[in-house]
Amino acid sequence: MESFIAASIEANKEIAAILRDNDDDSLFYHDKEGDEGIGYGGDRSLKIDLLAEDIFIKRLSRFGRINSEERGPFGEGDDEIVIDPIDGSANLASGIPYYGASIALKRNGKAICSVVCNLANGDCFVKSFNEGYRRNLFSPERKPITRNLKPLAGVFEKAYSHPKIAVLLKKNGFKFRSPGALALSLAYARDVCFTLAAGRSREYDIIAGLHLCDDLYNFVSEKLIIVSADRAIFERLKSILIEGKA
Amino acid sequence: MESFIAASIEANKEIAAILRDNDDDSLFYHDKEGDEGIGYGGDRSLKIDLLAEDIFIKRLSRFGRINSEERGPFGEGDDEIVIDPIDGSANLASGIPYYGASIALKRNGKAICSVVCNLANGDCFVKSFNEGYRRNLFSPERKPITRNLKPLAGVFEKAYSHPKIAVLLKKNGFKFRSPGALALSLAYARDVCFTLAAGRSREYDIIAGLHLCDDLYNFVSEKLIIVSADRAIFERLKSILIEGKA
Repeated sequence: MESFIAASIEANKEIAAILRDNDDDSLFYHDKEGDEGIGYGGDRSLKIDLLAEDIFIKRLSRFGRINSEERGPFGEGDDEIVIDPIDGSANLASGIPYYGASIALKRNGKAICSVVCNLANGDCFVKSFNEGYRRNLFSPERKPITRNLKPLAGVFEKAYSHPKIAVLLKKNGFKFRSPGALALSLAYARDVCFTLAAGRSREYDIIAGLHLCDDLYNFVSEKLIIVSADRAIFERLKSILIEGKA
Repeated sequence: MESFIAASIEANKEIAAILRDNDDDSLFYHDKEGDEGIGYGGDRSLKIDLLAEDIFIKRLSRFGRINSEERGPFGEGDDEIVIDPIDGSANLASGIPYYGASIALKRNGKAICSVVCNLANGDCFVKSFNEGYRRNLFSPERKPITRNLKPLAGVFEKAYSHPKIAVLLKKNGFKFRSPGALALSLAYARDVCFTLAAGRSREYDIIAGLHLCDDLYNFVSEKLIIVSADRAIFERLKSILIEGKA
């Protein structure tokens, strides 16, 4: 797995360098007008989404067939590599520093190696089978995965589309942020009080992030994801949001 | 003003270095239990809030009297320096990479020089009288202040406390993030579709950020702030949120 992780990190570095040196905001424009510019995952692609995808395809195809948000299935191989080339591209286009890339290597239908990288500050989360670590994109030093024991806020992705859930959270005293990049927010799940996502998520968005936090308490359905390192918070969110006990 | 800006940048670098080298999570704990740990601004102070404040006091007192979130008014001088040592400290404590520092130099009751710095990625926004620029904390290169012409999302701070406003925004098709640090979100206002903040803001939180975006369309009342570089978006938000025309 080390060479797959190394290649994923190199791809992220290449994308980070493009973003750093870029003075041309056309990167953040839609590639094409109309339906033609809709990616395989259903969102409209920006030029940077496609550029980042090309870089991942170039560096990762030798490890398996690609399944990526913009172009869909591509290439050959026994293993499948599921990629969201830019997680949070609306943030990137809007200058909000919370966006990244999500890469998972699947074998026999199961994620066995995942890399999620925050391209806005270099935070990188890596998991290979059951072993995880953090590092910065620009420093090879590995830090152990730890749990934050005193988080002060949770994360609720897609809050803007689900104000009823926001009402329930407020009523029950849950403070949240909604930073706008789901794979990243799953990668940060053990640092925050909870990570919550409402609405339909695609495999591209969540497979690597869920693999990173599969040792935490988690509930995953078609329309709701709840993750927390804290059992009491997890159980309370489940009873409020699933069993309707506000 | 150059020496004030330089001293503010150095203070931010010193704080960033502490955060980078820190392996001790007690920095993110409350300094004291009970009322004793409540800062002048009304929030409970974390150790890092006080540590950062000490650094700003040490480096900036020679420019005027200090008015800071944790300790309140302090020192002497004709000019007043209003500081939020850590904007978004709940994010910092929760591992969410969106937090910073906000510094404004006031003369005759008006901000004349402001520095807002995102300590999670080094983005720094500087304004001296009417001239502004961006730079990174670790690179002296200055970039001009530009407006993003194709933002895809707005920012709504304190969304978790104001779900009724979230309902109105959804009803009117406004997509937002809620990243959790108001001074930063004002500094990024010209990049995003809009920056909105509901609830009472303190001077520490907003004076530098509002100075940075005083050339944009803005509405500031005791309980609501609306800023946008886009006149049509600004007028629509005003009519929805102030005049009640949903």
